[in-house]
Amino acid sequence: MAGFDDLASERSKAQFDVEEMKVIWAGSRHTLEVSDRISRLVANDPVFRKDTRTMLSRKDLFKNTLRKAAHAWKRIIELRLSEEEAAELRFYVDEPAFMDLHWGMFIPTIKGQGTEEQQQKWLPLAYKMKIIGCYAQTELGHGSNVQGLETTATFDPQTDEFIIHSPTLTSSKWWPGGLGKVSTHAVVYGRLIIDSKDYGVNGFIVQLRSLDDHLPLPGITIGDIGMKFGSGAYNTMDNGVLRFDHVRIPRDQMLMRVSQVTREGKLVQSNVPWQLVYGTMVYVRQKIVSDASCALSRAVCIATRYSAVRRQFGLQSNGIETQVIDYKTQQSRLFPLLASAYAFRFVGEWLKWLYMDVNQRLQASDFSTLPEAHACTAGLKSLTTSATADGIEECRKLCGGHGYLCSSGLPELFAVYIPACTYEGDNIVLLLQVARFLIKTVSQLGSGKEPVGTTVYMGRVEQLMQCHCAVQKAEDWLKPSVILEAFEARSMRMSVASAQNLAKFDNQEEGFLELSADLVQAAVAHCQLIVVSKFIEKLQQDIPGKGVKGQLEALCNIYALFILHKHLGDFLSTGCITPKQASLANAQLRSLYSQVRPNAIALVDAFNYTDHYLSSVLGRYDGNVYPKLYEEAWKDPLNDSVVPDGYQEYIQPILKQQLRNARL
Amino acid sequence: MAGFDDLASERSKAQFDVEEMKVIWAGSRHTLEVSDRISRLVANDPVFRKDTRTMLSRKDLFKNTLRKAAHAWKRIIELRLSEEEAAELRFYVDEPAFMDLHWGMFIPTIKGQGTEEQQQKWLPLAYKMKIIGCYAQTELGHGSNVQGLETTATFDPQTDEFIIHSPTLTSSKWWPGGLGKVSTHAVVYGRLIIDSKDYGVNGFIVQLRSLDDHLPLPGITIGDIGMKFGSGAYNTMDNGVLRFDHVRIPRDQMLMRVSQVTREGKLVQSNVPWQLVYGTMVYVRQKIVSDASCALSRAVCIATRYSAVRRQFGLQSNGIETQVIDYKTQQSRLFPLLASAYAFRFVGEWLKWLYMDVNQRLQASDFSTLPEAHACTAGLKSLTTSATADGIEECRKLCGGHGYLCSSGLPELFAVYIPACTYEGDNIVLLLQVARFLIKTVSQLGSGKEPVGTTVYMGRVEQLMQCHCAVQKAEDWLKPSVILEAFEARSMRMSVASAQNLAKFDNQEEGFLELSADLVQAAVAHCQLIVVSKFIEKLQQDIPGKGVKGQLEALCNIYALFILHKHLGDFLSTGCITPKQASLANAQLRSLYSQVRPNAIALVDAFNYTDHYLSSVLGRYDGNVYPKLYEEAWKDPLNDSVVPDGYQEYIQPILKQQLRNARL
Repeated sequence: MAGFDDLASERSKAQFDVEEMKVIWAGSRHTLEVSDRISRLVANDPVFRKDTRTMLSRKDLFKNTLRKAAHAWKRIIELRLSEEEAAELRFYVDEPAFMDLHWGMFIPTIKGQGTEEQQQKWLPLAYKMKIIGCYAQTELGHGSNVQGLETTATFDPQTDEFIIHSPTLTSSKWWPGGLGKVSTHAVVYGRLIIDSKDYGVNGFIVQLRSLDDHLPLPGITIGDIGMKFGSGAYNTMDNGVLRFDHVRIPRDQMLMRVSQVTREGKLVQSNVPWQLVYGTMVYVRQKIVSDASCALSRAVCIATRYSAVRRQFGLQSNGIETQVIDYKTQQSRLFPLLASAYAFRFVGEWLKWLYMDVNQRLQASDFSTLPEAHACTAGLKSLTTSATADGIEECRKLCGGHGYLCSSGLPELFAVYIPACTYEGDNIVLLLQVARFLIKTVSQLGSGKEPVGTTVYMGRVEQLMQCHCAVQKAEDWLKPSVILEAFEARSMRMSVASAQNLAKFDNQEEGFLELSADLVQAAVAHCQLIVVSKFIEKLQQDIPGKGVKGQLEALCNIYALFILHKHLGDFLSTGCITPKQASLANAQLRSLYSQVRPNAIALVDAFNYTDHYLSSVLGRYDGNVYPKLYEEAWKDPLNDSVVPDGYQEYIQPILKQQLRNARL
Repeated sequence: MAGFDDLASERSKAQFDVEEMKVIWAGSRHTLEVSDRISRLVANDPVFRKDTRTMLSRKDLFKNTLRKAAHAWKRIIELRLSEEEAAELRFYVDEPAFMDLHWGMFIPTIKGQGTEEQQQKWLPLAYKMKIIGCYAQTELGHGSNVQGLETTATFDPQTDEFIIHSPTLTSSKWWPGGLGKVSTHAVVYGRLIIDSKDYGVNGFIVQLRSLDDHLPLPGITIGDIGMKFGSGAYNTMDNGVLRFDHVRIPRDQMLMRVSQVTREGKLVQSNVPWQLVYGTMVYVRQKIVSDASCALSRAVCIATRYSAVRRQFGLQSNGIETQVIDYKTQQSRLFPLLASAYAFRFVGEWLKWLYMDVNQRLQASDFSTLPEAHACTAGLKSLTTSATADGIEECRKLCGGHGYLCSSGLPELFAVYIPACTYEGDNIVLLLQVARFLIKTVSQLGSGKEPVGTTVYMGRVEQLMQCHCAVQKAEDWLKPSVILEAFEARSMRMSVASAQNLAKFDNQEEGFLELSADLVQAAVAHCQLIVVSKFIEKLQQDIPGKGVKGQLEALCNIYALFILHKHLGDFLSTGCITPKQASLANAQLRSLYSQVRPNAIALVDAFNYTDHYLSSVLGRYDGNVYPKLYEEAWKDPLNDSVVPDGYQEYIQPILKQQLRNARL
């Protein structure tokens, strides 16, 4: 078949060392070894099969997920997997489940917000999964506005307890994963009320279900909130609804690392800085950025391989048609996404470093870089998840009609991914936080307070407001210094223009609201600059392997020039570049596409994904697309019988003209 | 509850006559009356309920669709509905089914491509549904490239038959709706082979299944191609796979209106012009544009109502939070989509006129406007379906987390809509056709051949290449002439620039391939101009009703200035406007948002959609969102039992630390 030959021939064209690129992608030889070993372990275990997922009813789907989760945990114990290996295993099982929240939110929250005693009491139970926990923050009426949560936790000094209560319908907890059917415990966020006074939102450990029979405890109503986007996808998760009717918990189940309620009902602050919570936020969001690169690279891998297998139009002399990956329209949509996957991978890697840096500073009570680190991670979370969601759907479209089939893997990947644009901070709300930080940074320029971290470039405001792009020929666009300056100037000028427009308002808050759409764009410009600059920094490291560096340089340039093309209005309206230079950038971009073309398959092979993880007929490593598509089709339940169920009641009466008398 | 009050209060704010706007939206008082009556008829019939759709297994879902289809047909007969009313009924049943292809493709194809005799033989059977037909064109290996289809129809002069055959795996018919389980007949496209000579692709009427027992006839293999994007959505349709093993059909089942095969095996052309096929294409595509406005307006209606009910942040003096529709970030994403829905509605209306015009000319053998009409409908199909697909997903995001629930209606609307970007011409392939036409038009300027129809403006090439935008203050952007000129100049200059770049290539075809990404953008610019100019033309008509015209003017300006903002790079790089003028356009856009804000709810009420049609808890007419979301959740099958199926096997062993011995 054509597919086999095509991908083998593509692989032989690669001009770089794919094995070395795998190491770069994984981050280290060690990580590559672990992910390679664990992903194969999962792929070879029949319990972890995913191919019927989209055909199952909700109940069967959910039960199957429970089975996988239990099996995964069993394997983790049996094989004595390390924490890193266990996380990799859950990742490659690739099915949202209560485990994600237990390990990813419940345990970290207790570690971050619990006192030493609380940690000693609860963590051993959680580590052994003698209890299963979730994270119950969002309510029916409040998501982004956490301070607006309505659940109450009223201190009762007589019994030394908190009374957890849902006073309104909109105070119902709504969305927490793992809550609906599985969790025995939750960290519940609610308003701390002492002596009728509202002390704002705090976290409480609440047992939800009996450890004997799994029934909800008295006063607690729990259910699943129902079907979500897509078949399969996030419907494996029991996102839940939860209502409290005056449920009592002991006082020591308030998470008290930062503030404590005493036996007498006094609220006292500990000596632990409240800024610690930022550390957790930076951690969670760097994880999201890293996940974005995984999801996008997965979609890109599928679309790239299929684009080399699929042929359409352009009959060549040998009698076969042109591979669609050879069309410039295909390349101009696909290759920027390939470049984005790599770009997000490297900025995610850098965020890991940032998290460590922030943590070290926190421990030394150095809070100076916190606002910048917080803005930067918020912005990158927003930028990468939005681009990934759009990118997955674009990859689906790049696969033509067949991308619409579940067996392509892309519909489910999209459906399961998009919540990332909303959870852990709505992407627009986050960009407004970034914008606020940028405006503040601009307002402090020249005040002696130097911008730090990713805003250091703003210290060169005078130069950046005046500089002219030096590009005279297309190749000039390959210089990192030229690209960096254009992106810095664009971001600087957009921030300054926003600040100037804001200054025209008497009321700054009103101005901020009125100009918020522009402010969001200034924030995006800043975040794109970060991605570009971290990619360039990566290239300045020592990169071994034949041709590897050259490919990464091409991808970095593609990412930057694609963004420049997409946001050309920004660059032109701020006078950072001229129309002529824009046209040269476009020409250079086309030339870069030609450069990447022969390496495209190898560049997605470097992600080292198993066919199990990809779960896509179109993205198969061997390219054997058409026979497998045909084979998959017959597995649909509708094909169980040749004549469909319902024929006699609903089709035959139409054909036989007996409908008038039919009871339907 | 807040929701009720909010929407009632919103409705009281409207500054225009909503009933008159309903007429405008519907197209006429008559159409409004029909759609109002039929949509209520469907909404009040329990057989047509949609609320469990996303929870059903594929088999149950499909059987339920068969039931609805039979019931719809029964009602159509019982109520003696007119053709128009029957079409409305199928539209409001709102569930893709074999009926769509039978009425929308099978019958029109026989009408368009069949001889008088063929029509007399087949149409009465089809009209009574004594046979059910589908349209079998696309194959596993060929979609866009229709001329590359591999199915063969070989004439056997001995028996006076055609032998229909699938010579390769990739020649399997793949995708036709209604094929998988229902259709008894199909129009099958295959290569006409006479005496070993290939005469290209033609259509043939082929019986697929026995009218007695519904089993596939000998030599025919049929099945469903499996699950598609989303739950519910297009999985109600039996998109099918079909293989032929030397299946014989009589010679008179080739569709012979344009060319005939004689008893002796000679291919002769009739006196019917082959251009007639264009008429059908214009018809199908104008229908798609009209459907785009329906789908987009539906999503916009949901997002707008929910944005008025949802409150978050910004605690006001009365103790309640700000409606999210009051945030400029929300407005700057939502209102352009509201404006787009109206813009697509009016351009769709104009396309109906164009179709009639084309048909009249065809009958008079006037083919002069055909290429332009073809390019224009191809481009508008591409533009409106892409914008609608993206717009539905944007509306989902505008509904925050709750938009991810199936009960919001938006996931299914997205999943069911997106195939429109691929079927009846892949959107990128269509834009390349438009670009080819534009380049040709530019090349003929000054040759004496005047541009026609939507390209008439290109006759003013000299003026448009040189003109300078006259805007000096924000309000100048409200002038239709200013907007039109800016859009005309942008499109003209992009087409001319593309033509000039093309001219640098020795080989025009190679140049076209190399520059195709730029050519696509030139095509988009031209199509956006058409949408803007048709909206402006609409405003020049007599528009009754208090305030109606004013609202439409605001929407027209929002659409135009939003496009200008989104594609600012085009306008600036071609020198059509200055950065200062861009900034004024932006200021004007913000002011237009404030103008539309109090009318937003009434503007979506004017679509006159029933809650049944919207099938969205978030978009309910009464705004009673939260209680209904809560109520809906409990209907999920997972909530049938408090303790989930699988607890004993998979959860208890974890909690009781008995996993090691568990058999999973």
